[in-house]
Amino acid sequence: MYRTNTCGELRLADAGREVTLAGWVQRVRKMGSMTFVDLRDRYGITQVVTNVERDAALQEAASHLGREFVVQVKGTVAERQSKNANIPTGDIEIIAHEINILNRSEVPPFTIEDDTDGGDDLRMRYRYLDLRRGAVRRNLELRHSMAFEIRRYLSEQGFLEVETPVLIKSTPEGARDFVVPSRMNPGQFYALPQSPQTFKQLLMVSGFDRYFQIVKCFRDEDLRADRQPEFTQIDCEMSFVDQEDVLQMFEGLVKHIFKYVKNIDFTDPFPRMTWADAMRLYGSDKPDTRFGMEFVELKPLTEGSGFSVMDSAEYVGAIVAPGCAGYTRKQLDELTEFVKRPQIGAKGMMWVKFEADGSIKSSVGKFFTDEQLRKWGEHAKANPGDLMLILCGATMTTRKQLCELRLEMGSRLGLRDPQKFSCLWIIDFPLFEWDEETQRFYAMHHPFTSPNPDDIDKLDTDTGAVRATAYDMVVNGNELGGGSIRIHDSELQDHMFRLLGLSEADAQYKFGFLMNAFKYGAPPHGGLAFGFDRFVAILAGLDSIRDTIAFPKNNSGRDMMIDAPAEIDRSQLEELSIDVVLPSAENESK
Amino acid sequence: MYRTNTCGELRLADAGREVTLAGWVQRVRKMGSMTFVDLRDRYGITQVVTNVERDAALQEAASHLGREFVVQVKGTVAERQSKNANIPTGDIEIIAHEINILNRSEVPPFTIEDDTDGGDDLRMRYRYLDLRRGAVRRNLELRHSMAFEIRRYLSEQGFLEVETPVLIKSTPEGARDFVVPSRMNPGQFYALPQSPQTFKQLLMVSGFDRYFQIVKCFRDEDLRADRQPEFTQIDCEMSFVDQEDVLQMFEGLVKHIFKYVKNIDFTDPFPRMTWADAMRLYGSDKPDTRFGMEFVELKPLTEGSGFSVMDSAEYVGAIVAPGCAGYTRKQLDELTEFVKRPQIGAKGMMWVKFEADGSIKSSVGKFFTDEQLRKWGEHAKANPGDLMLILCGATMTTRKQLCELRLEMGSRLGLRDPQKFSCLWIIDFPLFEWDEETQRFYAMHHPFTSPNPDDIDKLDTDTGAVRATAYDMVVNGNELGGGSIRIHDSELQDHMFRLLGLSEADAQYKFGFLMNAFKYGAPPHGGLAFGFDRFVAILAGLDSIRDTIAFPKNNSGRDMMIDAPAEIDRSQLEELSIDVVLPSAENESK
Repeated sequence: MYRTNTCGELRLADAGREVTLAGWVQRVRKMGSMTFVDLRDRYGITQVVTNVERDAALQEAASHLGREFVVQVKGTVAERQSKNANIPTGDIEIIAHEINILNRSEVPPFTIEDDTDGGDDLRMRYRYLDLRRGAVRRNLELRHSMAFEIRRYLSEQGFLEVETPVLIKSTPEGARDFVVPSRMNPGQFYALPQSPQTFKQLLMVSGFDRYFQIVKCFRDEDLRADRQPEFTQIDCEMSFVDQEDVLQMFEGLVKHIFKYVKNIDFTDPFPRMTWADAMRLYGSDKPDTRFGMEFVELKPLTEGSGFSVMDSAEYVGAIVAPGCAGYTRKQLDELTEFVKRPQIGAKGMMWVKFEADGSIKSSVGKFFTDEQLRKWGEHAKANPGDLMLILCGATMTTRKQLCELRLEMGSRLGLRDPQKFSCLWIIDFPLFEWDEETQRFYAMHHPFTSPNPDDIDKLDTDTGAVRATAYDMVVNGNELGGGSIRIHDSELQDHMFRLLGLSEADAQYKFGFLMNAFKYGAPPHGGLAFGFDRFVAILAGLDSIRDTIAFPKNNSGRDMMIDAPAEIDRSQLEELSIDVVLPSAENESK
Repeated sequence: MYRTNTCGELRLADAGREVTLAGWVQRVRKMGSMTFVDLRDRYGITQVVTNVERDAALQEAASHLGREFVVQVKGTVAERQSKNANIPTGDIEIIAHEINILNRSEVPPFTIEDDTDGGDDLRMRYRYLDLRRGAVRRNLELRHSMAFEIRRYLSEQGFLEVETPVLIKSTPEGARDFVVPSRMNPGQFYALPQSPQTFKQLLMVSGFDRYFQIVKCFRDEDLRADRQPEFTQIDCEMSFVDQEDVLQMFEGLVKHIFKYVKNIDFTDPFPRMTWADAMRLYGSDKPDTRFGMEFVELKPLTEGSGFSVMDSAEYVGAIVAPGCAGYTRKQLDELTEFVKRPQIGAKGMMWVKFEADGSIKSSVGKFFTDEQLRKWGEHAKANPGDLMLILCGATMTTRKQLCELRLEMGSRLGLRDPQKFSCLWIIDFPLFEWDEETQRFYAMHHPFTSPNPDDIDKLDTDTGAVRATAYDMVVNGNELGGGSIRIHDSELQDHMFRLLGLSEADAQYKFGFLMNAFKYGAPPHGGLAFGFDRFVAILAGLDSIRDTIAFPKNNSGRDMMIDAPAEIDRSQLEELSIDVVLPSAENESK
């Protein structure tokens, strides 16, 4: 027994008690004849005091404690003279009569404080010290609570958590698999799952009825900004359900989490928006609905002006930034530069200022009369003092650009408060995406997604217009999760494979065991998966998922702390019947 | 909405209600003008009835439903005439007025019943059908409940579940690692964790204080009877604790599980037994204490008889089988054959019968007087009617053989009831094991295990006698879990590495990042890990862990259902900068 109490629990009511605490030295302050030590553990910080009159040797020893030393303190709880209202233990201090150094510490490479002086690389290399910082640890505490509440809700709803295997089979579809050579089966490989999709569908065939799993998944992708090669999903599936059942169940889950983890009560049903509306109003299938500023289509109002930029455009769209008519030339130039950045790629931006005094200024004033511009304003419900920003071009491209501009304006106007949460469902996704390059359809979700029953007759005649029974949950502009009702009819599944250009042999090779399973009584079923890292990041108010993960990898898929991946012994390679074949210089220069 | 109720919930009180059920056809019975369909889902079985007077077409259709068809039934709940007391829904039946076939099924390759006619291979190949069997599904329901209760207990005790990475670094120590080639870092590999040992210790350095994780671990071993290449651990670690704190906490966990999952209340503390006592009394560090029959050492009583087999033996040990004096020649021969099997390897077995009438018979009667044998009996507390079985030879070898004999006798006498649970702690393990072949010490647990503080002065002088601060939880002869207090002092750790023959460079290469972390204030800490698959198996009363796992692998590490591992595309190999080098025929013939 190293301690009687943690560093976070003693209060004024404990005054007079003899206690033993253990923790890390956060700070040592010598003030005249007294030395104060802030002792820290996961639960809080408690002030320890020594004093030269009471014990000169102890006071001397305390003064020499280094930052991050691990110490055990025995002493008496006493009321503090100058209380600290900022911490829960701020009313008391421990008058020490014994301090034992349990372990020493070298000077850490950065300060262990919420605002640290450590750069990103240093923090990652010394992640075990970075995790001592409350700012990081709190994210992992939140993650723990969320995982627990997710399990509680789903268990109460009759879901069974079933562990699906990690060593599975490579399916050359979608993203790249990580593979694992099998020593016992030379020349053969396992693959790590990109998701337990097929296994959860097999569990439905098995009659498990309601399945979930909080599970690691793996994707060998070139890592973009906020992706990790290993990530965690909340994976769920239900039998004998239609879309409405699934939406109800998982809207309930999200509300449960907000309620029990963040103490936020969502009483109204989450809004539902069709994919088509989301694209039309926000240019995105994951709109940030914490603020309005929906798109307004101006094309009919701009026709025939002779302004070729607009006349030749397939689409002219605008947003109205409230109260921004006073924007300066410089501010407008900044926005123009913003949309012209290569990542966004607009050719230019037009604007109309509806001044508070009723006058109108516009970058396209020479092509349109005030009367015409006023009509635009009326159409867009712009008020005096508002600024209209306009982009034009090909429909889908321009919408995406306008989406970025809208988000930028939302940020500038402070409308994207990370502590405000706006949740909605996006429904009626298209079933297929047409790929110009390969001139074929791809499944937008995956090949097991069921078409909307109303659109089945269009499968062959108007393939691109067929809607999927697929849905996404969107929070604050992030896709929190998504799923679909699956095809359980093998004829319909064969039809889908044909439309996707998969031969029977291909389909059998890739999905054979699932197709075989479906011959033995597959129930109607559907489900979804949430990105757990993202879910935590959203509730933590973080932009990146990285600090929701205890030991993340960097953009090269490298763990800087343990220095992995690394070379392995030749004997290991031989046992595995593989060899390394490094790309030759010749190949590299191609 | 496919159903209003499940197949397990309707009762007499529901009589008269209009309901919709959905599920699988378990059985169809045509009896005169009535057809009965047993409809099954995860929750139970409900009888559906159709009748030619009410609806001839429906009755005809019902008669043609095949086994495992998926159907939806609409009908009225009615009281049954001949009730079935064996099932909770046995008081009612559904008078159907509509039956919709949702999906058909081919005839399954084995019967979907608790006692199936399917062999092992067939069950594994069609695991998704095997999982429909209540006998298998119930194990996974138990697993779910146990996982949930484990999380509940540990969360309530302030433990945080933290996910540690799956893609880590290979450490060429202990069992073989599974490795994962890194595409982005050609020639380099990740390894899958054999346990999160180093990460949990790093989390203690990070001040997480109480950590746990229910986590997949991986070991590329030649699979013995009951091992899986991927298995699940309940991994735990605590800071500022000594052994007593850890034992209390996790004894509490095990009691919590028994209480909330099996409704079994353990009120007394679990017994604790030193490793030395366990070896002396049971010849095993995981004794099955559901029954007594402890070893009795006879060596001092057998000295000088001139019976060379015993005189030359280092150890003579016996067990007393109560009430077995009446064993026939044949039964005794069977036991002799049992201990002489190559897996056990005894040279022979001796016996003494203490007959009910006070007479004595023995296989060694010509070397010992009745008086001498009677002394053996007194020493061993044998009663009239008991049978003494004796093995002799080298101490450790003979104890292991006698252990097997004891377990065999326990089984024969019905003393190993799978529904009775006997838990205990084994403590005071030796810190080191001496390996004759390499003439060096190995860490019995792992190199971070702390020596018993009382034995530290013996580290150099009597290395083999040093006890570890290590402990195992044993239930019914199975090691449920084990752990240790870790070394947190870097000088002591260096000392350990030296004793284990690790050079400083080796230690740095293998455990460098942990050693570095320990320089920054490592708290005293310790923990343990339970084998979760085994834990479930014990509570389910199963001998094997295989049916506690939804999709297990066979002894060649192969998933028979999805047929993994498998070959992968050449393009995948090239991207990963590896090639397959199959062992040549020449090598194979060596």
